[in-house]
Amino acid sequence: MGRALELARLRKGLTHPNPTVGCVVVKDGKIISEGYHERAGAPHAEVVALSKAGQNAKDSTLYVTLEPCSHYGRTPPCTNAIIEAGVKRVVVATLDPNPKVMGSGIERLRAAGIQVDVGVLEEEARQLNEDFFVYITQNRPYITLKWAQSIDGSLATKTGDSKWITSRESREFAHRLRAEATAILVGVNTVVKDDPLLTVRAFLWERQPIRVVLDPYLRTPLQANLMVDTSAKTILVTCSQKEDKVKKLEDMGVSVVKAECVKGRVDLRWLMRWMHQQEIMHLMVEGGARTLEGFIEEGLWDRIVVFLGPLLIGNGIRVRSPGAEKLMDAIPLRKRRLWQLGEDVAIEYTRAY
Amino acid sequence: MGRALELARLRKGLTHPNPTVGCVVVKDGKIISEGYHERAGAPHAEVVALSKAGQNAKDSTLYVTLEPCSHYGRTPPCTNAIIEAGVKRVVVATLDPNPKVMGSGIERLRAAGIQVDVGVLEEEARQLNEDFFVYITQNRPYITLKWAQSIDGSLATKTGDSKWITSRESREFAHRLRAEATAILVGVNTVVKDDPLLTVRAFLWERQPIRVVLDPYLRTPLQANLMVDTSAKTILVTCSQKEDKVKKLEDMGVSVVKAECVKGRVDLRWLMRWMHQQEIMHLMVEGGARTLEGFIEEGLWDRIVVFLGPLLIGNGIRVRSPGAEKLMDAIPLRKRRLWQLGEDVAIEYTRAY
Repeated sequence: MGRALELARLRKGLTHPNPTVGCVVVKDGKIISEGYHERAGAPHAEVVALSKAGQNAKDSTLYVTLEPCSHYGRTPPCTNAIIEAGVKRVVVATLDPNPKVMGSGIERLRAAGIQVDVGVLEEEARQLNEDFFVYITQNRPYITLKWAQSIDGSLATKTGDSKWITSRESREFAHRLRAEATAILVGVNTVVKDDPLLTVRAFLWERQPIRVVLDPYLRTPLQANLMVDTSAKTILVTCSQKEDKVKKLEDMGVSVVKAECVKGRVDLRWLMRWMHQQEIMHLMVEGGARTLEGFIEEGLWDRIVVFLGPLLIGNGIRVRSPGAEKLMDAIPLRKRRLWQLGEDVAIEYTRAY
Repeated sequence: MGRALELARLRKGLTHPNPTVGCVVVKDGKIISEGYHERAGAPHAEVVALSKAGQNAKDSTLYVTLEPCSHYGRTPPCTNAIIEAGVKRVVVATLDPNPKVMGSGIERLRAAGIQVDVGVLEEEARQLNEDFFVYITQNRPYITLKWAQSIDGSLATKTGDSKWITSRESREFAHRLRAEATAILVGVNTVVKDDPLLTVRAFLWERQPIRVVLDPYLRTPLQANLMVDTSAKTILVTCSQKEDKVKKLEDMGVSVVKAECVKGRVDLRWLMRWMHQQEIMHLMVEGGARTLEGFIEEGLWDRIVVFLGPLLIGNGIRVRSPGAEKLMDAIPLRKRRLWQLGEDVAIEYTRAY
């Protein structure tokens, strides 16, 4: 199963809106074939591994990181392929937590007389696909909030200077996080101030996340990097009704989405439902402070990654919402992972409840 | 030398205003005696180890974590004892950086025909006594700033609630830091709000640090824990001239020190000189935010230890000074150590320049 998880990890971030899955077929104590799900629309990991094994798959044990599907989606059900191949035993890391699926793949295999064991390296397998699990069960993308701050909690100086709070090592690591996201979201102030590219550049990657800008009044400059650079798709989410401006932007190749708005701000809950329809499975919110606050205020987040640079900025721009009166009203987090990146520290938190 | 450093570490925090020193005497490849400096006024590590070795010390090698002294202080010079014992070779981890001493102990030993090697595990030995080194070279205590904050940088909610941002593990670890300090300083607001004891209680310890309160107007309540509890000495540092209040406080057993003040605030540079005269070698400043800001504004710190609790507080009380305009004006730090304490993270920074 360890090897199957390794195979799944190779495609992490490349299978949206599908989960990443790895599969290993073992016979007489030896691996006879391996497979992973390459991208949405491509064959599932089990089918890849079984077709490589061919006739040899008869009486084998199949290890797979996620419960085999039993329904017709973009491809036929994997349970059929497993049964037809004559597999004797199936070991599954974790069930598919989609309430419509959960356990039905297992049942179907057992009904066909196959021995099925579930729960090997389950925690690792669940964590690997937690974005997919949130996406299919909550009708919204899995949301990662990411920011970099000085150790005393400022994202920028009071004048807005934020280049660079963290080191090159941290910025490269942040590109690894981007690579796992379907889309990267920032507020228009960040575009105006920092003019980011929002692409994965620190290493070769097969897919660029979609760039999304919260831009209620269409203030994104036409010459902004993410307008001019065409290596990734750009979407401006707006409350504006200015048709001429919209047309000009669309002529430049960007998409303009007219959002439901409340008091001149994009309704984030509406936006999350819209993203779910667009099959945006994992959204990474990169700032600035006000945009991050909006997501925190709405409780719209699953994971927070904070980069801590070795600096005291003092009175700067920071994430302030929601402003608890008492500590028991503060938002509790659960620390999951920590990285030391040169002089920086990055900490990953998940929800504590 | 590793063993000598171990011996020195046993007394870390207990030898003020002296450094902590360990010594091992080796002959024919075997340790024949060990010693450490127990407390100020007690014999030095070399003398302890040599007296245990007795006649056997002749032709031995002596390992010591700090350059042996060559002057008459509270005890006679160690160089004399080493020469008289007939030691053949002395291995020293680091020189005593006091400009009045540096190298003179070594010279004296060499003049007596003893082979002297310097620099074995030097970095470890320097770090072990860095508080002493700052104290003797800068005429002020070594200053540790310590605070606990939420991951978004608040020391307390906007209403001042700060119990507890960090876990029991962190608070116990904070007592380890206290144990290394000669004195613990807080502002009077912290006394009024949190009523701390400021003692080492998480484990048995031979010595309680002195408690120091910055209290310009003598607002410390007579029934405050650090007034009533007599397990440690308490000093109130004030700008006040109210003799009757001073007398009442002194009758309770606390010391009141009339400081030099500027605009109703204690002059911290004056206070550091005064503490040096009082042989306060290592001062730990525990808050609150305004007190920490005062030390940061004056550049009066050598080490910062930040505890990060797994919480988002939002708009709370934080360390804000000095408020850089540009990132290049921010105060750069150097990360030295990191601890994971349950859900908390503690990071130790030193000066980056």
